[in-house]
Amino acid sequence: MSAPLRVAAIGGFHVGGRPHRVEGAPTRVAAFAPGGPARPFDPNGDYVAGQMYVQYVRLADPATPVPLLLWHGGGMTGVTWEDTPDGRPGWHDFFLRAGRDVYVSDATERGRASWFPYPGVMPGEPVLRPLQEMWDTFRIGPTEGYPLRRPHPGQQFPIAAFEGLARQIVPRWPGNEAATSRAYAALLDRLGPADVVAHSQGCGFAIAAAQGGPARVRRLVLLEPSGAPDHAGIDLALAARVPHLVVWGDFFGASPVWRQYRAAFERYADALRAAGGRVDVIDLPALGITGNSHLLMMDRNGDAVAALVAEWLTSGQLANPPAPL
Amino acid sequence: MSAPLRVAAIGGFHVGGRPHRVEGAPTRVAAFAPGGPARPFDPNGDYVAGQMYVQYVRLADPATPVPLLLWHGGGMTGVTWEDTPDGRPGWHDFFLRAGRDVYVSDATERGRASWFPYPGVMPGEPVLRPLQEMWDTFRIGPTEGYPLRRPHPGQQFPIAAFEGLARQIVPRWPGNEAATSRAYAALLDRLGPADVVAHSQGCGFAIAAAQGGPARVRRLVLLEPSGAPDHAGIDLALAARVPHLVVWGDFFGASPVWRQYRAAFERYADALRAAGGRVDVIDLPALGITGNSHLLMMDRNGDAVAALVAEWLTSGQLANPPAPL
Repeated sequence: MSAPLRVAAIGGFHVGGRPHRVEGAPTRVAAFAPGGPARPFDPNGDYVAGQMYVQYVRLADPATPVPLLLWHGGGMTGVTWEDTPDGRPGWHDFFLRAGRDVYVSDATERGRASWFPYPGVMPGEPVLRPLQEMWDTFRIGPTEGYPLRRPHPGQQFPIAAFEGLARQIVPRWPGNEAATSRAYAALLDRLGPADVVAHSQGCGFAIAAAQGGPARVRRLVLLEPSGAPDHAGIDLALAARVPHLVVWGDFFGASPVWRQYRAAFERYADALRAAGGRVDVIDLPALGITGNSHLLMMDRNGDAVAALVAEWLTSGQLANPPAPL
Repeated sequence: MSAPLRVAAIGGFHVGGRPHRVEGAPTRVAAFAPGGPARPFDPNGDYVAGQMYVQYVRLADPATPVPLLLWHGGGMTGVTWEDTPDGRPGWHDFFLRAGRDVYVSDATERGRASWFPYPGVMPGEPVLRPLQEMWDTFRIGPTEGYPLRRPHPGQQFPIAAFEGLARQIVPRWPGNEAATSRAYAALLDRLGPADVVAHSQGCGFAIAAAQGGPARVRRLVLLEPSGAPDHAGIDLALAARVPHLVVWGDFFGASPVWRQYRAAFERYADALRAAGGRVDVIDLPALGITGNSHLLMMDRNGDAVAALVAEWLTSGQLANPPAPL
């Protein structure tokens, strides 16, 4: 049993979004409560669309006043950072106990951020990941291992709770990235400078946010970024003043898509270094830490990975070489 | 500045839901990360649908081991209980500071519970409330007062933050109530007996849950229930052993729909009393507490209403007569 956290405040808010008006849509009739009367519902009117949701836990005595922002990946929500699918405390708990004020978001279009069901706002139809797709994309195991849940050898993801992961997944809209980036920018306008720890698709938004420089992002941790923008045409002067750390798990040999994503990120990292920036790298297998999936924070050794990240966030640099676990 | 909360654990989990398989759907091609390669996405496969999300804050020294569950209304999420649209702490904060372990849920189909975007699971098309509909249904003001935001006289809802309310609203599916009720039952299987505070549409699920008797629900608070089931054919023997409290705000004279909902609830309450049950009533205007909208927990006097509810939850009965505020 850990010592109690001394918490100053827990709460949530929405940020960003734009007014949107619906006109000329037909009225529906529906019962909105069991046992209640059916009544007309007119969807025409005023809305806000594109906002995102943020939940905060602020400590009574944080180790630093700089807030720590946890940004989830594609098709996921802030739940990524909470209890793991097999019920262990997650990185939200880890960083609170490490003394950080933590802000967890649900990016635009997912979770408590909401989404827009009438035409004209979202780009086309959403997709939801089936378990088979996650098995492959999250590098849990070989494709043919799915039916009997036979993972890659030494897999750190808790396989017995793989169905629990399915409960966390939410629909996503490919092509909606600009709206999401706007909402993250509004969040950093409100909270920055902040430390940002991003995962997968969230890294793309974090890389974009870091173009605002140290006034927005103090230090940036990218967990398994799913690529990076083409640096041609981007002025990296401000981003080069933000220390970056990238963390890679295992099993890249089994995933051509992930080798493409990683190569795209490495091109971006090289450009950032050429502009005078620093991009530290934690390649877990190279440190002898093997078996990590794409979902580092849910893996059985997730706390050990979090400890490496926390050390970097505190000191601003890698131990050289990092101590083996 | 309030004293720090001593928190033992903060986390979240999903509960309920059923396996679901998609077959025969076409493959799509999409880029799933900015700068990443377009790749085929095959939606065929295994899913879980109908689960709900629950977030908990457990205190180091709770006043009672009985958990307090906060169940939101239709088109909303657990955000209902967090910071109000004008940025004041909400009922989540209030009940934590009152010493309760609090569990806030996002019911099936909304927020972090997720929803299912392919055919065959959700019942038809969702609806999202425009501001005009909320203005009427939440009894903020007369219909003709919307354009200039002229509310009912003495309105307690923070009108200047009305657009903030729009950011909290999520799509809902009329007709999906059975799936939601199953998930709430799974939640009470896991956590009960619990105290439940429900709002609006959430009251319908809470009334259904109370049919399980005191093994599931110790005490039940219904904030502005949007109706109630027809009691004919329901055996109320177990529900009659669960003390009920109902709380009503102001401005029913302006809303024929709400008079219908209230009458339906009163028929149910009479049946429960006839079966030996107790249904206490806090009619706020009758106590001289005027101006409350349907969104009691967001109103400017929300803490005063919470204090009445907290007193009833602690003592299991109303002060007789309740002390005026």
